Amino acid sequence: MTISQRRDRLRQRLAEAELDAILVSDLVNVRYLSGFTGSNAALLVLADDETPVLATDGRYRTQAAHQAPDTEVVIERACGPHLAERAAAAGVRKLGFESHVVTVDAFTALTKAAGETCEFVRAAGMVEKLREIKDAGEIALLRLACEAADAALKDLVEGGGLRVGRTEKEVRNELEALMLTHGADGASFETIVATGANSAVPHHRPTDAVLSAGDFVKIDFGALVAGYHSDMTRTFVLAPIADWQRDIYTLVADSQRAGREALAPGVALKDVDGASRQVIADAGYADNFGHGLGHGVGLQIHEAPGINASAAGTLLAGSAVTVEPGVYLPDRGGVRIEDTLVVAQRPELLTRFPKELVII
Amino acid sequence: MTISQRRDRLRQRLAEAELDAILVSDLVNVRYLSGFTGSNAALLVLADDETPVLATDGRYRTQAAHQAPDTEVVIERACGPHLAERAAAAGVRKLGFESHVVTVDAFTALTKAAGETCEFVRAAGMVEKLREIKDAGEIALLRLACEAADAALKDLVEGGGLRVGRTEKEVRNELEALMLTHGADGASFETIVATGANSAVPHHRPTDAVLSAGDFVKIDFGALVAGYHSDMTRTFVLAPIADWQRDIYTLVADSQRAGREALAPGVALKDVDGASRQVIADAGYADNFGHGLGHGVGLQIHEAPGINASAAGTLLAGSAVTVEPGVYLPDRGGVRIEDTLVVAQRPELLTRFPKELVII
Repeated sequence: MTISQRRDRLRQRLAEAELDAILVSDLVNVRYLSGFTGSNAALLVLADDETPVLATDGRYRTQAAHQAPDTEVVIERACGPHLAERAAAAGVRKLGFESHVVTVDAFTALTKAAGETCEFVRAAGMVEKLREIKDAGEIALLRLACEAADAALKDLVEGGGLRVGRTEKEVRNELEALMLTHGADGASFETIVATGANSAVPHHRPTDAVLSAGDFVKIDFGALVAGYHSDMTRTFVLAPIADWQRDIYTLVADSQRAGREALAPGVALKDVDGASRQVIADAGYADNFGHGLGHGVGLQIHEAPGINASAAGTLLAGSAVTVEPGVYLPDRGGVRIEDTLVVAQRPELLTRFPKELVII
Repeated sequence: MTISQRRDRLRQRLAEAELDAILVSDLVNVRYLSGFTGSNAALLVLADDETPVLATDGRYRTQAAHQAPDTEVVIERACGPHLAERAAAAGVRKLGFESHVVTVDAFTALTKAAGETCEFVRAAGMVEKLREIKDAGEIALLRLACEAADAALKDLVEGGGLRVGRTEKEVRNELEALMLTHGADGASFETIVATGANSAVPHHRPTDAVLSAGDFVKIDFGALVAGYHSDMTRTFVLAPIADWQRDIYTLVADSQRAGREALAPGVALKDVDGASRQVIADAGYADNFGHGLGHGVGLQIHEAPGINASAAGTLLAGSAVTVEPGVYLPDRGGVRIEDTLVVAQRPELLTRFPKELVII
């Protein structure tokens, strides 16, 4: 699917919602619909016009022309108000706007610029809903991002990067550098390296804590490639392993498999969460798995759909999602195992680093 | 200054603005006022109560107690609405809110939660204004961030990292890895490495373009240390140098010096910009310097004050700012030289890597 086909789908949604146009303010949504990656932009998409208007400021004149050649580029620092005024001048009566993104102050400026004739209608999540189904180009980039992460972790482990005496920060530094050498533009979020009792903290940030014999080492990380994020968690053990560690590793691996096997188009999101969570609950660890099972991933590290016990809706074919159950025993240690997959009758596993228990 | 003293200053501002409380929604502002770094939080600061209320969700229970021990932590996923309700229950009549951050949808939820008795008053930028003056702890962290960047660039250059045949991306990868080994938590923004004609693009992103003899190599980058950002640009020449390159390098260096020398408490922001810009304009290159001179830097890479031709206000002692003029000749090449400094009668230069022309 080309970028202009994404906009075709959006214009269908506009027609269904009886909107004359939508003012896209979220920069990720602007990128999705135009290709433009600058830090100041807005996009006006009219229901009955194939050429959208991209507003940005003078810093990005060349870049906008290059990245978004099939848009009309206007150079104007106050992007949103300029496009609101332009929409009104074009006769737009009902203008969708991103009420989940536009601030109270910015909305005041939009309505002032548009004047009296234009009614603003909340269109929160309309573009995100389109983004929930990835097209072939997006999946190709997600694959590259996941491959860069896989290759980096493989190098780290095979090169002896996980060893007693190193600090969490040192491990992170090496892993992030390896992702760059494998083609990543950067880390897709703040890398988590958590050793020993720190592994019981779901979102631990790397410290100078030293990897020690008998530790769990939990690594949650991803690569960023051309705007697309990978997300993967693996948990290792530094020998010797204790029985309780083997038990919860096996439990989380079973739970994660159940979650992956539940992935299929049309399945209720909360049932995917439930399939994985039930395994952990049956073993008596329900209270030690305090977060949702997963989330969509793409141009953002967290995007639609959320996969958790209170999620509404169903899985869609072509979504890219994570499956990441964990069991965390406070002050002892924790295990999380996470993959990124593309939803299909037979889901495609993008993060291919093995999940068997590795004792180092 | 301790974090509680930052809140004391905020409570003075509340009293001056005749507000009973402020609901802080911006996560950077929450961090500044509480120490908490989680990704979902809000903070309620009452004018007449020393203990603020920090709301976050269950993922962060342990972290919040650890990072923000002198706040009352409440665990509630809908942080903002919960605190709005709580403010109303505490008898707050005039509640400041961050209208430049709170979205239209979120504001609807806040007002619904607070009910009829509570009037919401726009308090955009109130916390950012406090952040404009750095305290000693913040300046210490900025120093560390700038030192990490200095050391990384020194290693890169002395180690032969800038050489004909390498790609922009390879240079970026090595520089970012070096920052990590010098204590950075990461890059403070997307590193710019721009060679040859690419150096004429102010915000070029690294590509597979190869460094070639006679190129300008412009590197704009920074390190992140404990939440604080450094920002520095240096431009090198790969031999042989042409006369026009020497000319614009000298010009930008002169302009940058003029900008640094204009830094002093009480000076109008636009006059700082003007001091630097005039040097470039006098040489006939006014049209080749299309961006502002600089910006504040701290918990964000861009924060108050902006230093540009249309900025209102004056420099404040204790602000940390960049000075970064550039001359860009389309399709030929460009030079930018940028430092981070702390404003004082005698400004402190934080980015100490030399600025003399280096021909490699």
